[in-house]
Amino acid sequence: MSSHFQLLKTDTGTAARRGRLQTLHGPIETPIFMPVGTQGTVKSLTPAQIKETGAQIILGNTYHLNLRPGSELVRDLGGLHQFMGWDGPILTDSGGFQVFSLAKLRDIRDDGIAFSSHLDGSKLFLGPREVMTIQANLGSDIAMVIDECPPWPCTREACRDAVDRSYRWAQQCKQIATDNGFLAGGHHVFAIAQGSTFDDLRREAAESLAALDFPGYAVGGVSVGEPEPEMLKQVGATTPFMPADKPRYTMGLGTPPQILKMIALGVDMFDCVHPTRVARNGAAFTPDGLINLRNERYRADPAPLVEGLDNYTCRKFTRAYLRHLVMANEILACTLLTLHNLHFYLDLMAQARAHIEAGDFGPWHRAWVERFEAGEAAAQRK
Amino acid sequence: MSSHFQLLKTDTGTAARRGRLQTLHGPIETPIFMPVGTQGTVKSLTPAQIKETGAQIILGNTYHLNLRPGSELVRDLGGLHQFMGWDGPILTDSGGFQVFSLAKLRDIRDDGIAFSSHLDGSKLFLGPREVMTIQANLGSDIAMVIDECPPWPCTREACRDAVDRSYRWAQQCKQIATDNGFLAGGHHVFAIAQGSTFDDLRREAAESLAALDFPGYAVGGVSVGEPEPEMLKQVGATTPFMPADKPRYTMGLGTPPQILKMIALGVDMFDCVHPTRVARNGAAFTPDGLINLRNERYRADPAPLVEGLDNYTCRKFTRAYLRHLVMANEILACTLLTLHNLHFYLDLMAQARAHIEAGDFGPWHRAWVERFEAGEAAAQRK
Ligand SMILES: [Zn+2]
Ligand SMILES: [Zn+2]
Repeated sequence: MSSHFQLLKTDTGTAARRGRLQTLHGPIETPIFMPVGTQGTVKSLTPAQIKETGAQIILGNTYHLNLRPGSELVRDLGGLHQFMGWDGPILTDSGGFQVFSLAKLRDIRDDGIAFSSHLDGSKLFLGPREVMTIQANLGSDIAMVIDECPPWPCTREACRDAVDRSYRWAQQCKQIATDNGFLAGGHHVFAIAQGSTFDDLRREAAESLAALDFPGYAVGGVSVGEPEPEMLKQVGATTPFMPADKPRYTMGLGTPPQILKMIALGVDMFDCVHPTRVARNGAAFTPDGLINLRNERYRADPAPLVEGLDNYTCRKFTRAYLRHLVMANEILACTLLTLHNLHFYLDLMAQARAHIEAGDFGPWHRAWVERFEAGEAAAQRK
Repeated sequence: MSSHFQLLKTDTGTAARRGRLQTLHGPIETPIFMPVGTQGTVKSLTPAQIKETGAQIILGNTYHLNLRPGSELVRDLGGLHQFMGWDGPILTDSGGFQVFSLAKLRDIRDDGIAFSSHLDGSKLFLGPREVMTIQANLGSDIAMVIDECPPWPCTREACRDAVDRSYRWAQQCKQIATDNGFLAGGHHVFAIAQGSTFDDLRREAAESLAALDFPGYAVGGVSVGEPEPEMLKQVGATTPFMPADKPRYTMGLGTPPQILKMIALGVDMFDCVHPTRVARNGAAFTPDGLINLRNERYRADPAPLVEGLDNYTCRKFTRAYLRHLVMANEILACTLLTLHNLHFYLDLMAQARAHIEAGDFGPWHRAWVERFEAGEAAAQRK
């Protein structure tokens, strides 16, 4: 059952892992970051440019694609890969998280979630059958179960209910994906462990879902407003109880230091809108922190964003030119900064993999985080 | 003096010409269309994507670049080619036309034009020395003289003044470009013939400027609000009096049929924001006219924008996907439609060159225009 994931090496100083996940659209080397393609496009990049960032797998959002253009239309046009021209692996979320964050008038029932579209207010429903059908229509390489994500903070009782309901929905999702041949066809379905800030509920969620033998597991209910130490604590309270021979995914996180810290806790897969979103605001990642190109100091700066970083933006353009594009509100600023920021993340993942292999991930990632956070702190003081 | 332009063939049925213009950044095969890069970027495209459209030369706007980021900054960073990462030829306008269309409180004096910036209201001045210095700072392969563009319609007296003033400014521009070594360095300077709707003034402008022996000539004062027949009449009243052994350029025009009709009148070079602007509005060129992807009929259309057209957008994406991007306001819609529309224009220029060489430009271009205009008319009726 788990021959789809090879655990190539486990770090000794940390819980970091080096792995390889097989999918219908090729292998993924882990740890890996997945650029987010919310509406069937990684914002401002062509599929050829996504490849240039070093992306191995991208994420599509079920909630958005189901509203527009609709999953049946995508299916009729050959599935999401063909629709958007991306032939690498695609992971789709269940849509549940966006119902919590975007939709209005949601009603959580035992059979699923009723809600109103944020686009036109039309009444919709997502339950285990709906999310598995939609993700099958999209042709996802990795589909996620629907779960209930409790708010932060939440009461133990509310968390208990969310964990129990999420477990039942996961069970039903697996049954549906078995019955309709989705799993047998080589697609994966990942379960999601909730539990909020309650360590015993996190352990229970992870262990009970592990018994259902999913192809992979996600830590859910993080990045919902809690401070970073709390987030890391929740991840650390969950991963030890996930099966070692399955890939692990933390949904919707994070900054480069957060991702390195989660790799050290044994997480293999990440996605986040952060690098693409800040690009659209005119900011770029460097090993010394984010830099905001609106700052006057870059007006005549002939240096690339990051010296020696091998991406199109850094090879071809100066900070001065990129700042000019940002100040002139040119679309090309989004494209070039998105390309750079995603490559920065993906290059960091490649470095992490190399250091896990070399056996020095612990000291390397601590030094990397220290330099990045020192740069961020210095920028704050200016 | 005119060895920089080879007239390879002149059509017999029309005045169309097939030529080759040498520049410091390589040869340009004419007739040619020049994508517009107003602010140091062809909106939404990387230089690599501009190359993919088949562009041989692009246009930069002196007015915009001089305001932001400033021509001295561009010079200090190695010139416009290096600044924006485009190593092909660049033509820059003088900035005069944008002073007429964008700036406030302009005052036309004998020594130049005083005006206020449309960005921050600061007081600026453009005369022959200023425009030649700015274009030298930018490192233009082809610089334009400053001219006075009279409004349409205008009185004969106002036109007379504009023609006379434009002549004196052209004389001064050429003197400056000679004195500072710009011309001797292999850069070209093109003069601009005004004359509005007065045939005799157009002839006088063309002939008096021809006597100054510029490397190239433009028809100015068209596309300022006049109807198409009037525009074509003005072009036709000018080109016969321009030197046959120099390239001819019509500034700021036009639709594909207009360009073909002007090629038939003996024009070699064109620029227009039309294909890039309509791309940003969700419209795409086809041989049967413009199509608006917001139209519901393209919701599930699995066809490419143009069957068999060899560009990235047509090779990879369906109309249904492009419509989805347009409806979701995704930046990638701009990029893919701009890439397609520019390639459509540049492919049309390649076809025009081939048909001039083959000797059937006349019937071919009439049939092309007829099909395109029939498609446009049919779309209007729907
Ligand atoms: Zn983030
Ligand atoms: Zn136009």
